[in-house]
Amino acid sequence: MTKINKQVQLEQQPEGKPTEKDFRIVETEVSSPKDGEFLAKNLFLSLDPYMRGAIAGKHMGHTRLNQGDLIGGRCVSEVIESNNSTYKVGDRIVIESGWQEYVLSSGQKEHGIRIINSSKASLSASLGVLGMPGLTSWAGVECLSKPTLGETFVVTAAAGPVGGTAGQLAKLKGAHVVGVAGSKEKCSIAVNHYGFDACVNYNDPNWLENLSKECPRGIDLYFDNVGGLVLDQISDQLNLYGRIILCGFVSQYNNKEWHGHNLGKYVGKRANLLSVVVYDYYDRFEEFLNVAIPLVESEKLKYKEDKVVGIDLAPKHFSKLMSGENVGKALVEF
Amino acid sequence: MTKINKQVQLEQQPEGKPTEKDFRIVETEVSSPKDGEFLAKNLFLSLDPYMRGAIAGKHMGHTRLNQGDLIGGRCVSEVIESNNSTYKVGDRIVIESGWQEYVLSSGQKEHGIRIINSSKASLSASLGVLGMPGLTSWAGVECLSKPTLGETFVVTAAAGPVGGTAGQLAKLKGAHVVGVAGSKEKCSIAVNHYGFDACVNYNDPNWLENLSKECPRGIDLYFDNVGGLVLDQISDQLNLYGRIILCGFVSQYNNKEWHGHNLGKYVGKRANLLSVVVYDYYDRFEEFLNVAIPLVESEKLKYKEDKVVGIDLAPKHFSKLMSGENVGKALVEF
Repeated sequence: MTKINKQVQLEQQPEGKPTEKDFRIVETEVSSPKDGEFLAKNLFLSLDPYMRGAIAGKHMGHTRLNQGDLIGGRCVSEVIESNNSTYKVGDRIVIESGWQEYVLSSGQKEHGIRIINSSKASLSASLGVLGMPGLTSWAGVECLSKPTLGETFVVTAAAGPVGGTAGQLAKLKGAHVVGVAGSKEKCSIAVNHYGFDACVNYNDPNWLENLSKECPRGIDLYFDNVGGLVLDQISDQLNLYGRIILCGFVSQYNNKEWHGHNLGKYVGKRANLLSVVVYDYYDRFEEFLNVAIPLVESEKLKYKEDKVVGIDLAPKHFSKLMSGENVGKALVEF
Repeated sequence: MTKINKQVQLEQQPEGKPTEKDFRIVETEVSSPKDGEFLAKNLFLSLDPYMRGAIAGKHMGHTRLNQGDLIGGRCVSEVIESNNSTYKVGDRIVIESGWQEYVLSSGQKEHGIRIINSSKASLSASLGVLGMPGLTSWAGVECLSKPTLGETFVVTAAAGPVGGTAGQLAKLKGAHVVGVAGSKEKCSIAVNHYGFDACVNYNDPNWLENLSKECPRGIDLYFDNVGGLVLDQISDQLNLYGRIILCGFVSQYNNKEWHGHNLGKYVGKRANLLSVVVYDYYDRFEEFLNVAIPLVESEKLKYKEDKVVGIDLAPKHFSKLMSGENVGKALVEF
């Protein structure tokens, strides 16, 4: 039996910050699964900054979308009909579904399907702290930069799922953790909810002085989620031989021309620039979850969600995310 | 007894590439050493790309020079009069002397004096392969990036003292070594004299294709002496998780505005960017020489010099160096 499947398609390529006008909501139909297929109902859709580049074909592994193309994205979903031996009715999965209510899948690898481990964490956490953003943080902190006792760790987009998790992991490893975020509210979450030592609001004109005060021994590690001028400015406070983890460029995704960095500054700091690309760590998801699930269940690792209900609100919520106005992991609940 | 001491002073700050007009030759006098001082006669002056930034006050630890200031630089010198118990008449030293014929010194630490170890190498080698450039190469190769068997190592300014030594050290450690240089003559030196596996002339319009052919397994390490666009272009051929050693920016020193790098490219490559600042390794000079002197004496580590005779020729020779027209270590012999 076919079902009505509301989905979000591209109306036009966004110029600068995406707005609701760049998207359109369309009712399509989804049919019952054939042999080897299953049908899942999406419960939560994850909205992430990388999508801005993906739509424009500038994010690794993504081709530029045309008018009418389904917007890509991961969902937490429940299998509701199945002719596939691996995925059974009732299974909760994470799947590369796109922005829509249902997903019909052959279970092939390119759909990036992962059955959600049973845990006390909320289902939606599998799109945040226990999902791709959490894995990103773990890769950058635990696998690449390895902050340790007494080191000062600074992270931008501190209230977000990557920054917030990275800072908490660094704190659990004994570092002095200072966040940077774009509002008082976000800073309050970083300090009072995530337990950072401090958080600096970069919309305060004195933010660099404030950062310096919160990092009296300089910065040993900088986990960068924003790129651009802020990366240059924070790196001015890096200690010699400090590590910089290049993770995201949210300050640049809406720009045609990206900020150009004079690498002479980084040589002066003898900086070690490392890059985290989360896709390289998908084969270590279980290893990550073995660490992260107990931490989430014992509330040593906290998360914050910014949810709206209904697929119709996805474009507006994404626009808010790309303007830096969301607070916590951006999600659409169905 | 006072001596006539010809020296090179700044006439005016160079605009772009330095020319002879930016310098002036002046005869000054140098007096006999007082208590605790010694007088040394310079035998060789080293000309190095960093001097371009030093004159402009843009190189670390250097203040901008004014008209009439002595141009800074290191010399191999012989002590000819001494009232200092550490430095005796006949001692051969490397000293931060400046571009002049004699240097009067109190032997203080800031003069960076080093007595030259007796070896079969030429005295002038203490300004090149066995001096600051050699130490730079060793730091970048042996201490920081550690190329190993089967890895592909690319180095720019391949005929120069830093690039040439770095490539040879990487080759001795089992890497496949490909140089990049600005002329056929330079490439011939890299291959036939230094023993690189190949060298590509970047003034050939097909140089990037040629580089790709010479690096059939991609590039694992890129030792960058030039910066700018070439750094971006060579990095396009970097293997995932490759190392880039940022060592010099000779393509940029003459520019007012430096090339801006989009770091997104480097994240796509998961590049590990490392910086070598030779001043951090001066306390390991003996360790370096213990490796390098036997290699030079046994001709496993070769060098090439580009010498002129007479201090009057220093400005012209420096201008040639900063135009990329010199071949090998630029020196002035007195």
